[in-house]
Amino acid sequence: MNAPHTLEWQSHALPRRPPPPAMIEALRERFGASCSTAAAVCAQHGRDESAYDAAPPDVVVFCESNEDVAAVVQLADRYAVPVIPFGVGSSLEGHLLAVQGGVSIDLGRMNKVLRLNAEDLTVTVQAGVTRMQLNNEIRHSGLFFPIDPGADASIGGMTATRASGTNAVRYGTMRENVLALTVVTAAGEIVRTGTRARKSSAGYDLTRLMVGSEGTLGVITEVTLRLYPQPEAASAAVCNFPSIKAAVDTTIAIIQMGVPIARCELLDPNAIRAVNRREKLTLREEPMLLMEFHGTTASVAEQATMVQEIAADHGGQAFEWASTPEERTRLWTARHHAYFAALQMRPGCRCISTDTCVPISRLAECLIDTAAEVEASGIPYFIVGHVGDGNFHVGYLIDPNDPDESLRAETLNQQLVARALELEGTCTGEHGIGLHKMGFLIDEAGLATVAMMRAVKQALDPKNIMNPGKIFSA
Amino acid sequence: MNAPHTLEWQSHALPRRPPPPAMIEALRERFGASCSTAAAVCAQHGRDESAYDAAPPDVVVFCESNEDVAAVVQLADRYAVPVIPFGVGSSLEGHLLAVQGGVSIDLGRMNKVLRLNAEDLTVTVQAGVTRMQLNNEIRHSGLFFPIDPGADASIGGMTATRASGTNAVRYGTMRENVLALTVVTAAGEIVRTGTRARKSSAGYDLTRLMVGSEGTLGVITEVTLRLYPQPEAASAAVCNFPSIKAAVDTTIAIIQMGVPIARCELLDPNAIRAVNRREKLTLREEPMLLMEFHGTTASVAEQATMVQEIAADHGGQAFEWASTPEERTRLWTARHHAYFAALQMRPGCRCISTDTCVPISRLAECLIDTAAEVEASGIPYFIVGHVGDGNFHVGYLIDPNDPDESLRAETLNQQLVARALELEGTCTGEHGIGLHKMGFLIDEAGLATVAMMRAVKQALDPKNIMNPGKIFSA
Repeated sequence: MNAPHTLEWQSHALPRRPPPPAMIEALRERFGASCSTAAAVCAQHGRDESAYDAAPPDVVVFCESNEDVAAVVQLADRYAVPVIPFGVGSSLEGHLLAVQGGVSIDLGRMNKVLRLNAEDLTVTVQAGVTRMQLNNEIRHSGLFFPIDPGADASIGGMTATRASGTNAVRYGTMRENVLALTVVTAAGEIVRTGTRARKSSAGYDLTRLMVGSEGTLGVITEVTLRLYPQPEAASAAVCNFPSIKAAVDTTIAIIQMGVPIARCELLDPNAIRAVNRREKLTLREEPMLLMEFHGTTASVAEQATMVQEIAADHGGQAFEWASTPEERTRLWTARHHAYFAALQMRPGCRCISTDTCVPISRLAECLIDTAAEVEASGIPYFIVGHVGDGNFHVGYLIDPNDPDESLRAETLNQQLVARALELEGTCTGEHGIGLHKMGFLIDEAGLATVAMMRAVKQALDPKNIMNPGKIFSA
Repeated sequence: MNAPHTLEWQSHALPRRPPPPAMIEALRERFGASCSTAAAVCAQHGRDESAYDAAPPDVVVFCESNEDVAAVVQLADRYAVPVIPFGVGSSLEGHLLAVQGGVSIDLGRMNKVLRLNAEDLTVTVQAGVTRMQLNNEIRHSGLFFPIDPGADASIGGMTATRASGTNAVRYGTMRENVLALTVVTAAGEIVRTGTRARKSSAGYDLTRLMVGSEGTLGVITEVTLRLYPQPEAASAAVCNFPSIKAAVDTTIAIIQMGVPIARCELLDPNAIRAVNRREKLTLREEPMLLMEFHGTTASVAEQATMVQEIAADHGGQAFEWASTPEERTRLWTARHHAYFAALQMRPGCRCISTDTCVPISRLAECLIDTAAEVEASGIPYFIVGHVGDGNFHVGYLIDPNDPDESLRAETLNQQLVARALELEGTCTGEHGIGLHKMGFLIDEAGLATVAMMRAVKQALDPKNIMNPGKIFSA
């Protein structure tokens, strides 16, 4: 068979567009020691959590303000050199690789919570603030920011990839929770999109256009977010099921009954086995839902009763509750460490994670066929899913020194994406397109719709300097 | 003082771009009797609920399919003639006026509910389906579509203006509830944006770019929406307050406590007076919150108790409940008729409605200063507000034959918008920019951000044929 089209980037090197000496000189003059061409620094900024080999930028600039970012982009515009925004490096799809060289803009020092407006349930942060830092800094207000992609990602990166995670079933994704942005455009202008009003019909929704644009339309430097009151009560539970189908059918019934469940996560036996081993837990190694309920004490109790009844109807058993913060944290830490726990199941392996999302009525079918297919391939794997949203991840644990295994995993991924699209789903629920899924984007959206996206890109970044080679081939 | 800049359109006529005879001929050939140049038909399609004089198109085509719409737009593209999508004509900002002439595409015959996927809580409809029709047709499923702008608007029009209304505080706006679209582009291509998956990170969010684009980027022909389970219990209540501030402070506390209130509407004494007269009600003519709670029976009772306590803390009195569907319908019908009830308070008047939205912590200040200013002007007015979102409308009841009164109302509106922007709000919460607020959009977003919007427009509609002269001056 042919090589999968999604590996195209690796087989067709793009022309390099390095900064000329005059640009490096200008950056050194403006930024001094905050500008580095050291190989180690560049190497660290040319990789992420994807399985790709590193593609380092030529220079890294550590920015501390909107004006710093604008200064870098103005130079990049003048010399037509790529710029790649960098948060904490937790992308899974190769977003941070400098495939044409250029400048990595490290936003890690833009890590201030600028303004908390507790009465309005809004906060404005610099792009380099991470989600855990944010929640620590606003805890005193009684509010929290729910979006939780697992990694302690930067808010800028989460915005750029339209991230979501475990709480999205109740609180939505970055799409629903970003109110306004400060963006440095491809021309190096500092612009604002949106306001702190909860809703608006004022012109094109540039905020939503930037959310999920993966650094290809501008550099996101400040983000205004919606916050939520910390619930009066929260309770987590695990429940095992005789089959994946029973767990998914339970999920569908929960959603359809309108239970405002805060989290509804599926773990397959492989994921539980890995978590048990790493976290020294004794969870039953059967398909499991890990759930959380938020609300008043009475409402949480009522939700729990309803869900227990629904689960029992589908053969759910061994409902176990975790009501103290410590117990809940222990369970969710285990869930968040599933990825690393799985890596430990095959020493030296790399993990390739899929990210399909389908309408929930098609989820069981999609999961079951996929699991059977992967099982037959012999590649070690695990499955975790934000099943309340129809989103799940297969992690293929591959030997990085075995090209054949990589190819087989990629072929499985293609089959999975084709299945998800057939079921009216998407090739990526929350990770983004990056380098990896450009072919899948065309399969999903069609050439005419991708041409519209390209037209928007061309209009806002005519020199193609904003993270080129991502979303679309350069 | 100078004439308000928002009246610019009326003082500077745009060049007409009528369809040439060959185009009319081609339309007649394709559409027969579904293509009309009759003056009465054109006049009916060149007006809306705004205070503007009509600006009729040259021809109206009644489309019945995506292919019909594509055929019209392909001709419009060839001859560089404007096209204006038309739903039911309930726009408040002049969206439907053919300010350069051209073709009105009437979508009223595209009124089919195409596909209900009850298990996934989604439905796909043609753009001409109205929100009431939709809810009637899906009632048997136990689901409902919550967005409720008052008028029985078309789903296509609601999408194009990013509409919201009374339920948005709980269920969000069209921004949050449109999953996917079919759009006819400016080149006359039929494209799909989005999928039926609840979330996606696949490329630019063209769905959100089209939501609120007011017909200026393409013709929305099909819309896939999120639905919600009909709540087990619903209860409405009215409560009077000694002042607008007390009513707004109650609202802020409700939101901050995390009460999942479904509707939270403010009516000022003028609105109540009008409603009492028209609907033969005896509501107390004092600032009032009209609220609704959705959930399980126990949850609705708990929410009600919490809200009553909060209201009592702010001097709220005369809490009255409406728990039967009939009582609730009566109250909400009264609320929805406030606009028409107010019109009857000054026979022969026209209503100019403002539409600012501010962060809720600034809402009381914005409302109080605005009410004082309008009171001092002597122009009859009323105020209603979706206060849970910080959105309110002042209706100025003006004599259409008194240009001075129009100018004074417009000046008041400008002062209000300036105040809302100062308070970090928006010039339009849900009505859109249309013809009326092009200057306000620049005030709000800034020239650089509006230039980005224009660049997107230019990229997707290079001949400026899609509803030209709206959002931006042509």
